[in-house]
Amino acid sequence: MTDANGLASGLACAIPHAPHDRVQLGHGSGGKLSAALVRDHFLPHFANPILDRLGDGATLALGTGDIALSTDTFVVHPLEFPGGNIGSLAVHGTVNDVAMAGATPLHLTAGFVLEEGLPFALLDRVVAAMGAAARAAGVTLVAGDTKVVERGKADGLFINTTGIGILHPGFRPAPDRAREGDVVLVSGPIARHGMAIMAVREGLAFEADITSDSAALPPLVARLREQVGPEVHVLRDPTRGGVASALNEIAAASAVGIELAEDAIPIPGAVAAACEMLGLDPLYVANEGTLLAIVPASRADDALAALRREPIGRDAAAIGRVVRDHPGMVLMRTRLGGRRVVDLLPGDQLPRIC
Amino acid sequence: MTDANGLASGLACAIPHAPHDRVQLGHGSGGKLSAALVRDHFLPHFANPILDRLGDGATLALGTGDIALSTDTFVVHPLEFPGGNIGSLAVHGTVNDVAMAGATPLHLTAGFVLEEGLPFALLDRVVAAMGAAARAAGVTLVAGDTKVVERGKADGLFINTTGIGILHPGFRPAPDRAREGDVVLVSGPIARHGMAIMAVREGLAFEADITSDSAALPPLVARLREQVGPEVHVLRDPTRGGVASALNEIAAASAVGIELAEDAIPIPGAVAAACEMLGLDPLYVANEGTLLAIVPASRADDALAALRREPIGRDAAAIGRVVRDHPGMVLMRTRLGGRRVVDLLPGDQLPRIC
Repeated sequence: MTDANGLASGLACAIPHAPHDRVQLGHGSGGKLSAALVRDHFLPHFANPILDRLGDGATLALGTGDIALSTDTFVVHPLEFPGGNIGSLAVHGTVNDVAMAGATPLHLTAGFVLEEGLPFALLDRVVAAMGAAARAAGVTLVAGDTKVVERGKADGLFINTTGIGILHPGFRPAPDRAREGDVVLVSGPIARHGMAIMAVREGLAFEADITSDSAALPPLVARLREQVGPEVHVLRDPTRGGVASALNEIAAASAVGIELAEDAIPIPGAVAAACEMLGLDPLYVANEGTLLAIVPASRADDALAALRREPIGRDAAAIGRVVRDHPGMVLMRTRLGGRRVVDLLPGDQLPRIC
Repeated sequence: MTDANGLASGLACAIPHAPHDRVQLGHGSGGKLSAALVRDHFLPHFANPILDRLGDGATLALGTGDIALSTDTFVVHPLEFPGGNIGSLAVHGTVNDVAMAGATPLHLTAGFVLEEGLPFALLDRVVAAMGAAARAAGVTLVAGDTKVVERGKADGLFINTTGIGILHPGFRPAPDRAREGDVVLVSGPIARHGMAIMAVREGLAFEADITSDSAALPPLVARLREQVGPEVHVLRDPTRGGVASALNEIAAASAVGIELAEDAIPIPGAVAAACEMLGLDPLYVANEGTLLAIVPASRADDALAALRREPIGRDAAAIGRVVRDHPGMVLMRTRLGGRRVVDLLPGDQLPRIC
């Protein structure tokens, strides 16, 4: 059996040669460097009584209600973009998915894959943004994990977050609950997140004019729950694949048609210009702080008023309605008066947008 | 606004040129290819009523008890090894962490990062093993996510799993509950997982003789709970960093000393030989289906008998005891009668072992 002290001393000698401002493979080993990574770069931003116990699993009391659970891995490139970074996005993306089930998100877990050589300065900005986004969204990080892979075996940093939230009695929006006559609402201007990423990647001149909509949606959902309650039939955040893909999935799940009015869909001018330049349809571009809500026509005004009470919902709009015709299909009435099919994309429009 | 059908047709034309037996970037887009990926390669292995709803978040009832939550990202290299693959490992690793909190694991989420070009044949083997491991461990996969990154931006496949389980009243093993006089038990031979990985990587001749211990530990925990109950002070699966790191963390958390007896620690012959050849100490090598339990001396025989009732616990052994001296330190009485410090490793012994 190798002498543990000899081995430890040997490794300790090697460490001073490695740069201290970057992640090293040893930070993933489960030894002293791993402990230092967690202590110095994660706990300062996430500390709370549950996480501070640092067991392999968090234990917590959730009360007696049903729960919602959602998971998402974030591989966005670049890691930082106007309006956020992969850390804030990893919080928003998952709390939003939990919120779309009608639940109030309470806790998050986070799993990090770090590429050897990742600058600690960048990691610290990401983790700080993540901590701030979690506090703002009212969720605590209760369990985490870090892994390190060799240079060239990842792309800087990937983050998985899994969120858990408490459901409210009687409030169960679901993709299969859209009904003929319902109205489709959107909480704000669309296609901002995807185009913020693309503008940075492509070095577009108006890059600075487009910021991601990345934001936590639970406040909007709370307003809708308070004002409209169980009559909120569907909630959905149109992320990957955009509004078009989200509505196609809802149309299929509910076996209804959906008809959109092109001139009612809010699209910021800079976003529309960037889409045109790159040949992209804003309906397929990802959003990360915008929701679709489907409610009965009789409650549409109440729902719009509820959304507009929050800053991120002030531009909420009714953009379409649920119809009996063409079940499973989404059509759009164009500005020119025609109708076109808004299909599900077969492949990739914008890779690594989240 | 670009015509969605035109865009869709353009992409559809491009697809036949891409090989159908490998993951493409388009499988990560949130469009039709993403839907096909989930339908053809994931759902057949994971199908259950909760997951089949395919919303962004799963909703489920957990009853009134407290819960345990744990997350882990798996980056093991190679993806397949004697005794398992990254899929079965991703189930075992997380259900074991939930079980170490004393909970019975019920549900898992899974987040996949796929590298463009990953052969579907390999992905299918991994996902099939994951489904089989989940069924064997009695957990259902209730939410999932897939992302695809460009060739060279990941290493085949990374998997995050997050597990949720129900705690049992009065049964709360924790790293800070080791007490003077307690006995340290191990459920089986150590260092098998790490050495199985290393043997493949290094192409060692006795590769075939070493299989990973990767297995679900909840049955062992259930036996301990039934036989010993609240007197199970600590449970821990010694994964990254091995038995040495796990015991150091327990010694620190409980402010006690731990004394191991070298000749009592079960190490398979082939594992010991491989460790010696590679200059590794088995105490620092990862396990993925072995647990440490710390119980009062008066219950040690009951606990050993309980562990030995399960096939994976048949070689369970008492390997040490908790002492008042040298709090926070782990010492080992060697076969030659001396004592040496079993320290926490400063850096990396075996990278990407899980």
